[in-house]
Amino acid sequence: MNQGIKLELRAREELFINLEPLQRGGVVPAESRKVALSYIDGYSTCDYCLGTLHILKKPPICDFLTEVADFLGMDNAIITHGCREAKFAIMHAITKPGQAMVMDENRHYTSYVAAERAGLKTYEVPSTGYPEFKVNPEEYVSAIEKARKENGELPALVLLTHVDWTYGNLVDAERVGKICQEYGVPFLLNTAYSSGRMPINGKQLLADFITCSGHKSWAAGAGVVGILALRDEWKDKVFKPSQRYKVKPIEILGCSARGTSALVLMSSFPYVKERVKHWDEELEKARWFSGQMESLGDIRQLGDKPHNHDLIRFETPVFNRIAQKHKRRGYFLYEELLKRSIVGIKVGKTKSFDLSTYGLTREQLGYVIDSFRDVINKLS
Amino acid sequence: MNQGIKLELRAREELFINLEPLQRGGVVPAESRKVALSYIDGYSTCDYCLGTLHILKKPPICDFLTEVADFLGMDNAIITHGCREAKFAIMHAITKPGQAMVMDENRHYTSYVAAERAGLKTYEVPSTGYPEFKVNPEEYVSAIEKARKENGELPALVLLTHVDWTYGNLVDAERVGKICQEYGVPFLLNTAYSSGRMPINGKQLLADFITCSGHKSWAAGAGVVGILALRDEWKDKVFKPSQRYKVKPIEILGCSARGTSALVLMSSFPYVKERVKHWDEELEKARWFSGQMESLGDIRQLGDKPHNHDLIRFETPVFNRIAQKHKRRGYFLYEELLKRSIVGIKVGKTKSFDLSTYGLTREQLGYVIDSFRDVINKLS
Repeated sequence: MNQGIKLELRAREELFINLEPLQRGGVVPAESRKVALSYIDGYSTCDYCLGTLHILKKPPICDFLTEVADFLGMDNAIITHGCREAKFAIMHAITKPGQAMVMDENRHYTSYVAAERAGLKTYEVPSTGYPEFKVNPEEYVSAIEKARKENGELPALVLLTHVDWTYGNLVDAERVGKICQEYGVPFLLNTAYSSGRMPINGKQLLADFITCSGHKSWAAGAGVVGILALRDEWKDKVFKPSQRYKVKPIEILGCSARGTSALVLMSSFPYVKERVKHWDEELEKARWFSGQMESLGDIRQLGDKPHNHDLIRFETPVFNRIAQKHKRRGYFLYEELLKRSIVGIKVGKTKSFDLSTYGLTREQLGYVIDSFRDVINKLS
Repeated sequence: MNQGIKLELRAREELFINLEPLQRGGVVPAESRKVALSYIDGYSTCDYCLGTLHILKKPPICDFLTEVADFLGMDNAIITHGCREAKFAIMHAITKPGQAMVMDENRHYTSYVAAERAGLKTYEVPSTGYPEFKVNPEEYVSAIEKARKENGELPALVLLTHVDWTYGNLVDAERVGKICQEYGVPFLLNTAYSSGRMPINGKQLLADFITCSGHKSWAAGAGVVGILALRDEWKDKVFKPSQRYKVKPIEILGCSARGTSALVLMSSFPYVKERVKHWDEELEKARWFSGQMESLGDIRQLGDKPHNHDLIRFETPVFNRIAQKHKRRGYFLYEELLKRSIVGIKVGKTKSFDLSTYGLTREQLGYVIDSFRDVINKLS
């Protein structure tokens, strides 16, 4: 029937050790899979509709969001389609096209694209560059000042990527929050790679807004789902209802992610609350893995050292040298790892690559180290 | 662990005859459920990322979207988070805040809220009111003229709800398309209740844009998912990429619905293509059901007559009279039906209610009629 379109079933977590940083925090626990199937039909969350999703009693989305706000140390939370949609909703609600916005150089591309969609002029806080690529909170002062000078007013919004997607660097958000507070500019903390993995407290970090990625870090796959949490003072502006439909927030067009996506986020939440308590173990494992990698020789970990996250980028001249003479060129590493049932390093990457150790056991990671060693011994 | 939050499994389609119009077109076939579970982990569609979702080869999203565009009689299609997000994306891409937009009075609330979010001034084409509530295409002329007069320019966009959510009325879209063509204004056809259920051809209907609801009418539940299809001439404007990230469309912030949501839409597509071929049978069944309901006495079908859709609204004085003297008041009908394993009529509705016959058998619908008759006989 499907005129040539072949759709293969996927069994990545079942068949492989998966190191893809995008995917490690979004592996869905068994209990949520049951919930996912039971809510799979369209508009399954609307059986007992009360006009909008975030106030629902059955399933208890409203109670869940109260707990989520508390978990994040914020006053209110709603479900969004994703972290990027949460960022855009905030920008669209509190800024005007043509205004300035400050963000860090390590930001996710969606922070830039959301600002572009909102018509904002962006100012970037540079990183320190190779090899650590750190974002120094103090640099926010210069960027804010530059934006003020060029636009005749303070930036309308400041964004910090709590943990970035390239180096897995953790920035001192509280220090950036303090600077924003001193200037009186709103502070958006993008926690796509932090909340749901590590404990965070938005108010302690002086954030006005927290955005989260369900499928990246809250064990909530299925569709795409995110969270927008904020302090009470921003509620009226960001959750502003339609003039004609008083229960429908404009910035999420009434209701956003619902059905399985929302329910998986909700059913994985107890599991997520528990796992963030063990962040120190994850961190220890990540650091141990990084050390093991470097001990293989001619491999250097980039970013924060010691590292503060499970997303780790390595510079790997050892593999690049092999690629130069290998008949499969840059593909060799991907293929050698695949033979060993390891996936998640992007195809063609040999100069440097990122991976994540999140949720993998020491045994699995030991096997990964042994495999890299094997490849080096075999092909160097 | 879940501090008091109870999450019940849902088995609505398994245990009941479900008449809820929101849900009948979004029931997910068995084959898609298998796909849903296999793609449930976060970022499952990104194993072979090419920079953005709609160009993916594996899973073959790109080929799928080519087929979808063809199926809708349009040139291009992308996946969006939902139909409302598709409508907003179009408005945001091709209009400016303060401009005028024309839409029908029967439009979904999200058409209004999306226009509000885009800062547009809306002009409504009135329906004929009770009992048919028809939208007369010719009335678009007056609304367009009024918008032109009051704003000194033509409206930036015209929207028609192909089949509305309140009465299930089908409007002659081609006639509205013709009027838009004559005025030279872009025409957005919202097919949330038509495409995926009945055959439609966007170009034949002279539409510039078609928006679709996966979870409402394409047997694609899971998360929330929609489609935005358009004619080539609008591609550069609506699918415009970021200036800095040339592969990322701004209006969907790079990628929108992915993972299970996108894959269920895709895996249900062969089933949907097949079912639209049997729309005449669905229509015949809906009309038969409507006649049966009216024959119960003191029940009147509102909207188009003969009816052209499975979403049907009835005015039901017979049930309202019972509610006046029943100890459970307006709740009695919901409760009597629930006892008979029938759900989907909203709680408390007795003066009038809507339901859908879509995908139910004549036997099931006969049982529904018998149940309504039972309730009347027992309580009148």
